[in-house]
Amino acid sequence: MKKILDSINSPKDLRKLSVSQLETVSEEIRGEICEVVSNNGGHLSASLGVVELTIALHVIFNCPEDKIVWDVGHQSYTHKIITGRREAFKTLRQEGGISGFPKITENESDAFGTGHAATAISAALGLAAARDIKGTNEKIVAVVGDGAMTGGLSFEGLNNAGASGRDILVILNDNKMSISPNVGALSKYLTDVISAEPYNRLKKDIWSLTGYIPAIGKPVRTILGRVERSLKNLVVPGVWFENLGFRYFGPEDGHNIARLLQILEHLKGINGPLLLHIYTKKGKGYGFAEEDAARFHGTNAFERSTGLAIKNSQRPSYSSIFGSTILEIARDNPNICAVTAAMADSTGLTPFSREFPKRFFDVGIAEGHAVTFASGLARAGMKPFVAIYSSFMQRSYDNIIHDAALQNLPVVFCLDRAGFVGEDGPTHHGVFDLSFMRQIPGMVVMAPRDENELKSMLYFAADYQDGPISIRYPRGSGTAASLSDKLVNIELGKAEILKEGEAAFVLAIGEMVPAAIKASEILEKEGILVTVVNMRFVHPLDTVLLDRIAVSGKPLITVEENMMAGGFGSAVMEYFASKGDVPRITVIGIPDTFAGQALRSRLLNIYGLDPDSIADTVKKAVQA
Amino acid sequence: MKKILDSINSPKDLRKLSVSQLETVSEEIRGEICEVVSNNGGHLSASLGVVELTIALHVIFNCPEDKIVWDVGHQSYTHKIITGRREAFKTLRQEGGISGFPKITENESDAFGTGHAATAISAALGLAAARDIKGTNEKIVAVVGDGAMTGGLSFEGLNNAGASGRDILVILNDNKMSISPNVGALSKYLTDVISAEPYNRLKKDIWSLTGYIPAIGKPVRTILGRVERSLKNLVVPGVWFENLGFRYFGPEDGHNIARLLQILEHLKGINGPLLLHIYTKKGKGYGFAEEDAARFHGTNAFERSTGLAIKNSQRPSYSSIFGSTILEIARDNPNICAVTAAMADSTGLTPFSREFPKRFFDVGIAEGHAVTFASGLARAGMKPFVAIYSSFMQRSYDNIIHDAALQNLPVVFCLDRAGFVGEDGPTHHGVFDLSFMRQIPGMVVMAPRDENELKSMLYFAADYQDGPISIRYPRGSGTAASLSDKLVNIELGKAEILKEGEAAFVLAIGEMVPAAIKASEILEKEGILVTVVNMRFVHPLDTVLLDRIAVSGKPLITVEENMMAGGFGSAVMEYFASKGDVPRITVIGIPDTFAGQALRSRLLNIYGLDPDSIADTVKKAVQA
Repeated sequence: MKKILDSINSPKDLRKLSVSQLETVSEEIRGEICEVVSNNGGHLSASLGVVELTIALHVIFNCPEDKIVWDVGHQSYTHKIITGRREAFKTLRQEGGISGFPKITENESDAFGTGHAATAISAALGLAAARDIKGTNEKIVAVVGDGAMTGGLSFEGLNNAGASGRDILVILNDNKMSISPNVGALSKYLTDVISAEPYNRLKKDIWSLTGYIPAIGKPVRTILGRVERSLKNLVVPGVWFENLGFRYFGPEDGHNIARLLQILEHLKGINGPLLLHIYTKKGKGYGFAEEDAARFHGTNAFERSTGLAIKNSQRPSYSSIFGSTILEIARDNPNICAVTAAMADSTGLTPFSREFPKRFFDVGIAEGHAVTFASGLARAGMKPFVAIYSSFMQRSYDNIIHDAALQNLPVVFCLDRAGFVGEDGPTHHGVFDLSFMRQIPGMVVMAPRDENELKSMLYFAADYQDGPISIRYPRGSGTAASLSDKLVNIELGKAEILKEGEAAFVLAIGEMVPAAIKASEILEKEGILVTVVNMRFVHPLDTVLLDRIAVSGKPLITVEENMMAGGFGSAVMEYFASKGDVPRITVIGIPDTFAGQALRSRLLNIYGLDPDSIADTVKKAVQA
Repeated sequence: MKKILDSINSPKDLRKLSVSQLETVSEEIRGEICEVVSNNGGHLSASLGVVELTIALHVIFNCPEDKIVWDVGHQSYTHKIITGRREAFKTLRQEGGISGFPKITENESDAFGTGHAATAISAALGLAAARDIKGTNEKIVAVVGDGAMTGGLSFEGLNNAGASGRDILVILNDNKMSISPNVGALSKYLTDVISAEPYNRLKKDIWSLTGYIPAIGKPVRTILGRVERSLKNLVVPGVWFENLGFRYFGPEDGHNIARLLQILEHLKGINGPLLLHIYTKKGKGYGFAEEDAARFHGTNAFERSTGLAIKNSQRPSYSSIFGSTILEIARDNPNICAVTAAMADSTGLTPFSREFPKRFFDVGIAEGHAVTFASGLARAGMKPFVAIYSSFMQRSYDNIIHDAALQNLPVVFCLDRAGFVGEDGPTHHGVFDLSFMRQIPGMVVMAPRDENELKSMLYFAADYQDGPISIRYPRGSGTAASLSDKLVNIELGKAEILKEGEAAFVLAIGEMVPAAIKASEILEKEGILVTVVNMRFVHPLDTVLLDRIAVSGKPLITVEENMMAGGFGSAVMEYFASKGDVPRITVIGIPDTFAGQALRSRLLNIYGLDPDSIADTVKKAVQA
């Protein structure tokens, strides 16, 4: 059957349709999103939630002249389908295909690239300020989720946008019909305020007023009740935004296209900073996602008719190993705390949060706070483990330096999703952490070669009291040998020699250790026997081993799933330089570029980090 | 004459004094702060503003059991004097002396080390959470300035603290009797709200109410006027904090000890998250500082009787050269914008802000926003220069990666106060930027060897459209040859050979270039002639030159005022490793430690970065 969507080649085509036709288009788009995401994986819940909003925005605003900045960006699927990418949408998140996030090089309607939360208001304000300098008159819209509003960057953006008075429309897309942490506090506030002075004076005034009334009957009481409710309305919930200089509108039903068209048309004619608060349902229109929006937030491919994952990994993920281990440790050590930034589930901390709610802290999307808060915990004698994705930990860089490391506090940084994350692409790859962590004085920098070693490293970290530690591990499950419950002995700054051979030394870190072992097996078939070392520590390095290598005169190859710039190989060279001479060394790592989206295995291959490529590089070094 | 202060050895002694005696102590402390800061330099205005508050806090709360976290920390002088450091206070900011900031290793009453703004609430919440886990009952206080409240981290802290319900007292120390940007927005809000629906409904209700009144006379009108004012009181200004889960108290006069004692005593008995809003005068009690709080915010030594600086540098600072150059460029190029984070004056941007107010953006203490906002400007065709101190730019690390570099936007990062800053110590040294900037793909990383070259680099950056650029330069004025208006020709990735010699290659970057030249002159006297290169670019490197060095077989020495870990020397080694072999190299830079406070010249000496030390190291390399 022909779809109305077939006639939509650009937002312009939407404007010819009636509201009921637009509603039909919404359903058609939902179907296509479900279809593609069930095949390719992706962010389903958020995108299903904003179908009507996106349609309404594109009817009222005129992209690409007008600019829509999608905060986080994982909800931009409808936007992509509408703005000429319906066919390409089938390649969502695939190598060479379209990105799961807005991308300025992909389409002129993608006003600003996003991926990390809370950037939209700041970016939109930049677009608005540029517009005002140039004297043009395009409209600027930022669409921000309620989760992202907890990020300090959103606040900084609001505070500046509100004070600027510039024309900018922030749409607060509220998935829970309320901004959850604030509303809890708000209702408490209303109880408080009743006993506070201004309200009491007001009440007194109203009662004085009634002194002029001959008979205080039921109508007066009714009216007084309404006055009180009005007061509550006055302060809830828009006033918070109004105080930041925004005119607040809403809350409105974000699935009601007719109403959205009406209010957006209205807002288009109003100047200054505006905030439209809408409520939507995450996962809207796909029953399984409506029921469990979290599971379908970011999902692998699944069977559409059942909602079940198509392929379940046979082994637990690194995240779940982290989660179960930290729980084990916490049972014996009352000082262990776990801190995460809106990622309890995906960092594996949900079991911990259930068993130790008092020692578990989900601070919302607020990575900077997470680290400074954890530093406060550590200063008071706790042992906090901060679990944040590597690429999001970048947001805590100064907090790590200034609050944890400078005070040498024993905070443990657990960097999940380190290395290539695959289809989520460049905003999400965690490829900088070995570099930025190892340059921080006093920071111990580790990476396990498999899940079992992660477990052992967590035990090591729990006992270590001399300062901060960083432990990185990849997305998904490991590729190394079978799992075991036996802990291995981790000693500060000591590497593990896994096999010995005369031709070369291959020093690998983290998930590159099993890759190096496989590479050595390939080389073995060609008669090249190499020593393979699991370095375990990027800082401090195993200098005893390095000294041994230096005197051997054998070729040395380092392997890391991190930027070469300032990374593990670089650390090895720095050590040798400090000793007077750098032996012949080949550094395998990620070159000076932002890697794109593709299966992790493909990215490893592209950047020479798969066993075959490593074997090739080692062979060349041996034969040089 | 004997001072009451002579009898104060700890906060306990304050509790024996009457209010009028405490007032006398305030004046005595002011005198001592003025005395020491006029000799040693330091943060005068902020410290003079909180003398009474600090005394009142130490009377009511019991340090070190109770914890006071001083945001930014430059206002902690009175705290230091009271908590047993009066004698040591004379060594303020000197090598081996006491720190200008709270420091946990200095005194047990320093609950948490600070230096960068907006960390206090997060840290205090960590202390409070630890207390609640342990079941102890100490009080936790965070003292935060109104400026720091514009930082997203403060918001993240408030949002989490408010929702937590924990006992925590945030004191908002408001130097301007209001949170300036918000109040502008607030008063606008009140105008708006009058035409808004809830208020209108309320008004209608009140008028309906008056329908029951036989005669509407003057008293009713008066009362209605008061109702309206009450409504305004109700929503201004505490409601913003109340909505975040805090009980708001104030505003109170922060110089009235009697009142402070009373309210703090009261607040001590109330549970939950509390916010006390006080207003104080920056520079209070020292006329020159009251008149010009900004100049005495952070000051060098000055003459107390006149307020005049004791020693004015003969040459303009790097900051002022930056300021005048960017102004020059902006006159010819309408796309040039300047962005700073509450540092217009100290980054040299005040003249720009006056001449081009529409292209100047002071975003407040919000470094993350500054960068994402600038990325928005750049995306819309502007050419923004973001001037932020190196150590504060650490707070924008993810914004630089995610918003500027990943989209390859031509934002220019101007990192003032790079290298050692001297007496402000480890929180303020800007020693990481060469490392963290050069690991970002596509980032051009430069540093000028003198002020003239800074000028030329800014012109180069203004013309460069291919991506982001980072330019770092030190605090104060340069040490190189005389200033000139003539621009030098800067070519991307091209170094400048300043002198040639056969014994070795010395590659230096930034302010280490004049130091290397001086070192070469020392060596010359011993008959050792070296080539000295001004590298100009840490990324991209001058590989033509590096290739020439490699074939020469001569010793190679790199010099940088940056961490060795991942820095310039490391970049040079990475290049050589990529070519197959690293020549003999000596890397001179900062080792794996947080450098302390001392004159910059002393720090350079301690870490081997002064001409004599460099000459020694080069000589050893030559003779090895």
